[in-house]
Amino acid sequence: MVRINLARLRKDLQELGEIGTTPEGGVWRSSFSEADMEARRWYVKRLEEAGLQHWVDAAGNIYARVGEGGPAVIAGSHLDSVPNGGRFDGVLGVMAALECLRSIKDHGVQPRLPIEAVAFTDEEGRFGGFVGSFAVIGTMTYEEILRRRDLRGMPLADAMRQVELDPTNIGAARRDPKDIKAYVELHIEQGPILESMEVPIGVVQGIVAGSRTWITFHGRADHAGTTPMAMRQDAFLGAAEFGLRARELVLMEGSGTTVGTVGVMDLKPGASNIVPDTAFLTLDLRDISGEVLQRLLERVGVLAHETAEKWGLAVTVERMRLSEAARMSPHIQAVIDEVARDLGHKTHWMNSGAGHDAQVMAKITEAGMIFVPSRQGRSHSPAEFTDWDHVENGANVLLNTLLRLATS
Amino acid sequence: MVRINLARLRKDLQELGEIGTTPEGGVWRSSFSEADMEARRWYVKRLEEAGLQHWVDAAGNIYARVGEGGPAVIAGSHLDSVPNGGRFDGVLGVMAALECLRSIKDHGVQPRLPIEAVAFTDEEGRFGGFVGSFAVIGTMTYEEILRRRDLRGMPLADAMRQVELDPTNIGAARRDPKDIKAYVELHIEQGPILESMEVPIGVVQGIVAGSRTWITFHGRADHAGTTPMAMRQDAFLGAAEFGLRARELVLMEGSGTTVGTVGVMDLKPGASNIVPDTAFLTLDLRDISGEVLQRLLERVGVLAHETAEKWGLAVTVERMRLSEAARMSPHIQAVIDEVARDLGHKTHWMNSGAGHDAQVMAKITEAGMIFVPSRQGRSHSPAEFTDWDHVENGANVLLNTLLRLATS
Repeated sequence: MVRINLARLRKDLQELGEIGTTPEGGVWRSSFSEADMEARRWYVKRLEEAGLQHWVDAAGNIYARVGEGGPAVIAGSHLDSVPNGGRFDGVLGVMAALECLRSIKDHGVQPRLPIEAVAFTDEEGRFGGFVGSFAVIGTMTYEEILRRRDLRGMPLADAMRQVELDPTNIGAARRDPKDIKAYVELHIEQGPILESMEVPIGVVQGIVAGSRTWITFHGRADHAGTTPMAMRQDAFLGAAEFGLRARELVLMEGSGTTVGTVGVMDLKPGASNIVPDTAFLTLDLRDISGEVLQRLLERVGVLAHETAEKWGLAVTVERMRLSEAARMSPHIQAVIDEVARDLGHKTHWMNSGAGHDAQVMAKITEAGMIFVPSRQGRSHSPAEFTDWDHVENGANVLLNTLLRLATS
Repeated sequence: MVRINLARLRKDLQELGEIGTTPEGGVWRSSFSEADMEARRWYVKRLEEAGLQHWVDAAGNIYARVGEGGPAVIAGSHLDSVPNGGRFDGVLGVMAALECLRSIKDHGVQPRLPIEAVAFTDEEGRFGGFVGSFAVIGTMTYEEILRRRDLRGMPLADAMRQVELDPTNIGAARRDPKDIKAYVELHIEQGPILESMEVPIGVVQGIVAGSRTWITFHGRADHAGTTPMAMRQDAFLGAAEFGLRARELVLMEGSGTTVGTVGVMDLKPGASNIVPDTAFLTLDLRDISGEVLQRLLERVGVLAHETAEKWGLAVTVERMRLSEAARMSPHIQAVIDEVARDLGHKTHWMNSGAGHDAQVMAKITEAGMIFVPSRQGRSHSPAEFTDWDHVENGANVLLNTLLRLATS
């Protein structure tokens, strides 16, 4: 089996990691920001150096290709980052895809089908996320572009025009599903499972369905010194007990891999000497099964009302966001697993708790994902790191997966 | 027994309630603010109209007096308010004291000892609180003044100079304990107990000891989608359980009237899709017994560490503030109770969960407090209200208590 050139891939990842650095030691490359544009220019230079056929589509997605005809096997991910993010999220998949194309060229391999590398626009969400992959599958219309703005109010359409992309031309970025054989994405796990199992390769079976719920308990503000304990309607108590019991619900009634998180909690009026009349919290719930998630969301609603009643409070429950689960192609899972074992690596079949462009591409083609371990499970942080051995192994699994898909 | 003139007192309270009003319907008269100075000028005019001997001391405390010689029986409270506070807190005690002096004059009563009314400077805490009463007992020295600033950084000394008070002269505000026979303060309860018992007069036995503790749980920030439940160090869970168990501790191991409140809680990084690595909360604990409070504070520290250990977290516990309990004079309690019953009112003997100038005056003289009901227990809010019947009853109890203390 052919292998990638780790020294070259490592140098690329390190150079790219110096673009858009933050004082905290991370990177910040929001899509279409100056740092993102610098990264794009740097990436195109690498494509030119490699002598690869390449082009930018109407959404700003950057493609490169080896081979002719079709349908194409595509590998990719994204170059943009979260604020103060890490040096592997997204860029590993893009740079490994490029490295695969270079290695195929170097070794003179000639697969039956063409193989492409793609760097998608705005996966991380400056403008809501998945802008590039949605354009490829045809759901990022001009009307949808007009609905999207960043947190500072900048319209996506204006940001596109600033970098000489015509938002009215977005339809040109759509790919005919018949021209795509498969999509494969190498990505860091962003969680601690592979490292804790000491397994170098994760075979992704699906990307979980996710929900975000806002829960607000309403009580009565009272003087913390003069109001007896028995005469209070303390919103904090309801929220604290709800949070603990929501975790038990996830553990007792979830699928076993369901996750639930209270990431925000806010008390009002918010003074140490006033009993809070309002307690707001967010609950993030995810599961690979949309049915399990729906059942849990119903139980969460009941739990919120039960808890409120117990503490003499009122409660409002708002479902803010619900994303569907995506299944990865069983065929590609089998190929990834076979390739990894042929290369001598153990594999672990697992779900992705985070969203990826692969879930979008899965709507129009067979999609697959390869995970490599994240040190201590850290991600979206300057502490994000993946050992170079794992980078090499992951890129070799990607390379040979692409070749088998393009040859079979 | 002589009686006050409710119509006159009510008119005064209503006029004063129009000084420093807020858009939310409350009042905001921080000490030495323009609104406070307007209230002071208005009050001095009332003293002039009443033809009472009056003066302002070096701390800005405003006195009036009937009778000659000494030692004096003093009644009073404060004219300043919390931000967006109510129309009874403090001002009831000041205006009722003035009404007592006017009534004594009107009825030609001549008690053996002089009776004074006092409006203390900064009870509510723009400059840390109790500025006026501390000056009277001698602990508000020039050095202490130099340590005090408001939340916007304005030094107390500058604020005093702006209203033509010389901070270096603060010692002149000190009263010789031998010149004071007793201090009595009429105040709204600021809690729901009297209203719920349908008792018009509270006889205050003591003012509780209070503490404020900052507790911070430290865990690890992780991706809410990719980190299995069993591999988390979720700071929220520790803080939520601690808050619930601290309440149980107060109920099970407190004195029965101990109160404990979590009024502030903050999670960091504070995103709905990130497991929080830091959870900060405040715990306000109060009890009439300093020993009970100390024992609970020790148990709180143990509880914080037990809870942190259970959830795999670290914790820091910071004791931010501790105020001593103050006992009211048993003799004055007996006089208040006797006067109230002679006037036909039921009484309830109780502690004050809030701080008052009486706790400061108790350091140099016999002190007592009379409570009247707060509607729905509301205070420090535009909703603060006390029925006019209760105002009248409270002022009559104050008047006759002052007369008995000044006569006996």
